[in-house]
Amino acid sequence: MTRKINTAVIGTGRMGSVHVRNLAQLIPEASLKVICDIRLDVAQAVADEIGIERVVQDYHEILDDKTIEAVLIVTSTDTHAMIIKEAAEAGKHIFCEKPLALELEKIDEALLAVEKAGVKLQVGFNRRFDKSFKQVCEIVASGEIGRPCILKITNRDPDFPEMRFLRVSGGMFLDMTIHDFDMARFLVGEVEEVYAVGGVLIEPELKDFGDIDTNIVTLKFKNGAFGSIDNSRKAVYGYDQRLEVFCSNGTAMAENEAENTVLKGNTEGFHVANPPYFFIQRYAPCYVEELRQFIECVRDDQPTPTNGRDGRAAVVLGYAAWKSLRENRPVKISEIK
Amino acid sequence: MTRKINTAVIGTGRMGSVHVRNLAQLIPEASLKVICDIRLDVAQAVADEIGIERVVQDYHEILDDKTIEAVLIVTSTDTHAMIIKEAAEAGKHIFCEKPLALELEKIDEALLAVEKAGVKLQVGFNRRFDKSFKQVCEIVASGEIGRPCILKITNRDPDFPEMRFLRVSGGMFLDMTIHDFDMARFLVGEVEEVYAVGGVLIEPELKDFGDIDTNIVTLKFKNGAFGSIDNSRKAVYGYDQRLEVFCSNGTAMAENEAENTVLKGNTEGFHVANPPYFFIQRYAPCYVEELRQFIECVRDDQPTPTNGRDGRAAVVLGYAAWKSLRENRPVKISEIK
Amino acid sequence: MTRKINTAVIGTGRMGSVHVRNLAQLIPEASLKVICDIRLDVAQAVADEIGIERVVQDYHEILDDKTIEAVLIVTSTDTHAMIIKEAAEAGKHIFCEKPLALELEKIDEALLAVEKAGVKLQVGFNRRFDKSFKQVCEIVASGEIGRPCILKITNRDPDFPEMRFLRVSGGMFLDMTIHDFDMARFLVGEVEEVYAVGGVLIEPELKDFGDIDTNIVTLKFKNGAFGSIDNSRKAVYGYDQRLEVFCSNGTAMAENEAENTVLKGNTEGFHVANPPYFFIQRYAPCYVEELRQFIECVRDDQPTPTNGRDGRAAVVLGYAAWKSLRENRPVKISEIK
Amino acid sequence: MTRKINTAVIGTGRMGSVHVRNLAQLIPEASLKVICDIRLDVAQAVADEIGIERVVQDYHEILDDKTIEAVLIVTSTDTHAMIIKEAAEAGKHIFCEKPLALELEKIDEALLAVEKAGVKLQVGFNRRFDKSFKQVCEIVASGEIGRPCILKITNRDPDFPEMRFLRVSGGMFLDMTIHDFDMARFLVGEVEEVYAVGGVLIEPELKDFGDIDTNIVTLKFKNGAFGSIDNSRKAVYGYDQRLEVFCSNGTAMAENEAENTVLKGNTEGFHVANPPYFFIQRYAPCYVEELRQFIECVRDDQPTPTNGRDGRAAVVLGYAAWKSLRENRPVKISEIK
Repeated sequence: MTRKINTAVIGTGRMGSVHVRNLAQLIPEASLKVICDIRLDVAQAVADEIGIERVVQDYHEILDDKTIEAVLIVTSTDTHAMIIKEAAEAGKHIFCEKPLALELEKIDEALLAVEKAGVKLQVGFNRRFDKSFKQVCEIVASGEIGRPCILKITNRDPDFPEMRFLRVSGGMFLDMTIHDFDMARFLVGEVEEVYAVGGVLIEPELKDFGDIDTNIVTLKFKNGAFGSIDNSRKAVYGYDQRLEVFCSNGTAMAENEAENTVLKGNTEGFHVANPPYFFIQRYAPCYVEELRQFIECVRDDQPTPTNGRDGRAAVVLGYAAWKSLRENRPVKISEIK
Repeated sequence: MTRKINTAVIGTGRMGSVHVRNLAQLIPEASLKVICDIRLDVAQAVADEIGIERVVQDYHEILDDKTIEAVLIVTSTDTHAMIIKEAAEAGKHIFCEKPLALELEKIDEALLAVEKAGVKLQVGFNRRFDKSFKQVCEIVASGEIGRPCILKITNRDPDFPEMRFLRVSGGMFLDMTIHDFDMARFLVGEVEEVYAVGGVLIEPELKDFGDIDTNIVTLKFKNGAFGSIDNSRKAVYGYDQRLEVFCSNGTAMAENEAENTVLKGNTEGFHVANPPYFFIQRYAPCYVEELRQFIECVRDDQPTPTNGRDGRAAVVLGYAAWKSLRENRPVKISEIK
Repeated sequence: MTRKINTAVIGTGRMGSVHVRNLAQLIPEASLKVICDIRLDVAQAVADEIGIERVVQDYHEILDDKTIEAVLIVTSTDTHAMIIKEAAEAGKHIFCEKPLALELEKIDEALLAVEKAGVKLQVGFNRRFDKSFKQVCEIVASGEIGRPCILKITNRDPDFPEMRFLRVSGGMFLDMTIHDFDMARFLVGEVEEVYAVGGVLIEPELKDFGDIDTNIVTLKFKNGAFGSIDNSRKAVYGYDQRLEVFCSNGTAMAENEAENTVLKGNTEGFHVANPPYFFIQRYAPCYVEELRQFIECVRDDQPTPTNGRDGRAAVVLGYAAWKSLRENRPVKISEIK
Repeated sequence: MTRKINTAVIGTGRMGSVHVRNLAQLIPEASLKVICDIRLDVAQAVADEIGIERVVQDYHEILDDKTIEAVLIVTSTDTHAMIIKEAAEAGKHIFCEKPLALELEKIDEALLAVEKAGVKLQVGFNRRFDKSFKQVCEIVASGEIGRPCILKITNRDPDFPEMRFLRVSGGMFLDMTIHDFDMARFLVGEVEEVYAVGGVLIEPELKDFGDIDTNIVTLKFKNGAFGSIDNSRKAVYGYDQRLEVFCSNGTAMAENEAENTVLKGNTEGFHVANPPYFFIQRYAPCYVEELRQFIECVRDDQPTPTNGRDGRAAVVLGYAAWKSLRENRPVKISEIK
């Protein structure tokens, strides 16, 4: 039998508990030893439900535990960089949720620590592990439909997250579009310039803290291709996740999934189901797959599929989009330091 | 410039006027010289609208006109065989709407006259000219998906025709399923045995004259394949026209067309358009194409794509289905004389 | 916390191990205490992988264990009825895979024991728990699209199971069509008469033991509706699972699922993914849901969603289909004793 | 019988001959009296094929003919404005192909003449008459899905037109995107600002005359909504015509049409047909409908559905896009004089 990787999860909120369950039940190559949350009762409830033996409140206990090889950081964004740094210094391999941080200095410090320690770092860009998006990527990479010309990504949430979360999220480009920036880099390559338009069309409360709920970001890629990302915080028909890479000899698209495959027809027309409503439902298999690959990379000493450079690049694009929106002009990525 | 074929249309009711318009406007290889209807005013109105110069009440005037090379017979079913016979004897090439007749003796007499006269006869099995059904046929015929195993045809009308028409129609199997019987022979080959179930599930008035509104006919083909046809007189969501040929190495299906390509999404789901409601709308291009090919066959002295044998075979299958339904047993085609 | 139901699984082959994993990981209301297989090493491997503590070779040990409340019977078909009887007599609630048995006498004996003991029995008609099929059922049951007129079920396997399995399976109607018979009863109601056609179109070896690989079964329902089921053992494009209930005021269909949602377009056309290839993959959520409901029924003392009567009725329909095929005539269900 | 409008067609090239055929055969409310082309032989060939009696080389003969009430201008773009002006002065109602001209001064002069003469002017924005796009417009206009937030238009040609045509076309934004600019105004309203990216990704020869083959145009609408148009001159899979209006309470999209409805499945997946390859085929019903409405407006003295203001506005947007591309900055519509 293959060696199991001893792991710990730091942060057991909504996403954290998803990772705990996946690690515990669906990744036989990992052994989940301990979970941690500053809200000890939250962590304990998760542990009870899933059957995890050890629960701690202070993540330093995990970092001090020599038997733990890898940690998952699923805490609030403002703590990511600090914990990465400490975990790297403690010699742990690291899986961290996106974004790495909202400040580039913090990211750079964390990545430096990772590099020095020689540990692995994977960033939670779960969508790269979606079977449909992955296949689009493979089709494009194979060259069979030629060179990318136009990338289109539609990413629309079914509804707003809680306002208190939004207020510290870094805003739409850093919280939501960041996934699309990573996907753009994954599918087409490095971006040279972005131009963002956007505004508050749905929820006026956002204006209090300078956020938006609707945007379109135009991309110029270094390889000459162009891209358009459109986002909304509220697509009442469900979580809208589509993309297309139009190429010189064809096109490859990923359409939405649907809740079911039922067609109902009557005099009014035909009715089909909405896409899944919730991101955790829509991307459930991705959360498993990203961890499976992380654990494999740790075990086999391979590079992680989404690394610190990817994590940083997406944040830089988010900053560039904010700058573009505020100054109403195209912004070169090289302007973001 | 190529020679134009002088033609005449006998019968200018609903289907007749469609053929008149198509011949006059969309088949440049034909020259429509005269149209005829026993209701002279009906024919005159059609002629006025479309711009046909000559109108007659008695089709014998057409048969006597030596300049007319080809006639379209679009009269009521009970007169088809008689007019075919006379037209053949007058040396005219003939396009006749289905069914050739409701009695096999009449059909045989008509076909004999056609054979003796050496004129061409095409039967109006318009669906063979549908672009989608034709492509299914080509895929199957090419052998690329192997040998046919299961044929499925769904043919459902959006609503009942007028009761006075139904009373003289020959009943569901001879009026409606007859298209599917022809399609079955077109796609898979000769049928050996049929088994029919059916009844009155929608319109009780049909019981007065022994007709049905819902049926399923099971087919055994001579080549070993099986088939299932399902029909309804009333699909409230529109004219439902689908088929599939499942083969040993794949499958080929034709799905319904839709009124438009609009998707509307809201909290209730997504809405798509119904299929076209009316057969004349759904099969409009087929009515043109079948005439175009008929005129070509006349001009180039080629065999017609749907001949008298096809017209007879579909009627035989209709009879077999009625016999099967009445006796509640599978009926061999060879039982029908 | 709610009381957990102590369970055991008897038979840990392909389906058995699926149930073991689901019970252990995804049904928190159940506590899987022991698993059993006459091939002890097979059971032990499953136990090791999933983390089950107790493994036995003789299921009587389970029946004798007073702490076990419910058993899953996932053994070979020929042992189902016997184990049901013994388990009922031991007071266990029972989930049994389909078919209950290949002989009606055995089924009746088992059901009598269940009735006497007052235990619950659920039969593994997993497809009733499919989200799409369930929704079709709900639409039809609600009456919003009127009265059922035509039921169509397409059920085609991607490839043959092993020949040694087929030889003892009861043949295509009892092994494969049985699911469709149950679905027909679920969606439309009791069947009065069946007519079956079928043959060997793909795999000649089946002729050795009188089985077939292709069939169409026509149904007459007691409520006047009609049905058509088509089956093939080999749909090279994947596991084909579609159905439609056409009603007097509309229609409801469940289309195939697809491996992914990618569309690839080039000069040749557009390419879309196959349906999932394997039944365990296609119906994975159903296997969980049927167990979840079984455990709930046991806990809350409610009737099971698929009971012994359902299990028997589907076998009766399978027998009727075989009789119909052999005698080439419609067979009334009342003929099967 | 209703009065017929006497019409003439000036210009009988590719689009002109389509209009001639439609007027002659499918618009019974119009009487096509004369057609005109400076290439007299071209006009004569069209007249012979379709059966038009009078052919002239100089359009002034038409303008001088008092019996002609309405003219269609389907000449090369550089002559549109001049002929409009003269036709208006001659008191003719005018249908003119887009664009009205490549210079705003010429357009303004022509529109002034139209206004003074009090004649009707309709611009050939055929896509507004597409059944799917029209329905999207109606859904949005009804308010049932709320307020527009994001407009997306994909408009991709299957291949390049001839280079000699492109050289005098005004470039991609004035020749191709102009349709999308009009559609944007039709669906969402007036545009305030555009930002264009684009380049030569397919056909280097375009660089000789400063044109591009790929672009994305971002729109800010006066009502606060945002839009993204993407264009390519070469979509090898066919003429790609899709759009979506995402709104605060739902979304409405028009998907591509397909050549046929055939699905072919085998081990490789399922194959579906390409969209129609050619714009004249794709929009054939629109060309009829726009003329039908033009003739009706003339007959009933109603405003035309696409007027001079629409024709001018789309050209202004084309200019703004070119300016934006050249200066790499968002350009306000008010900057274009």
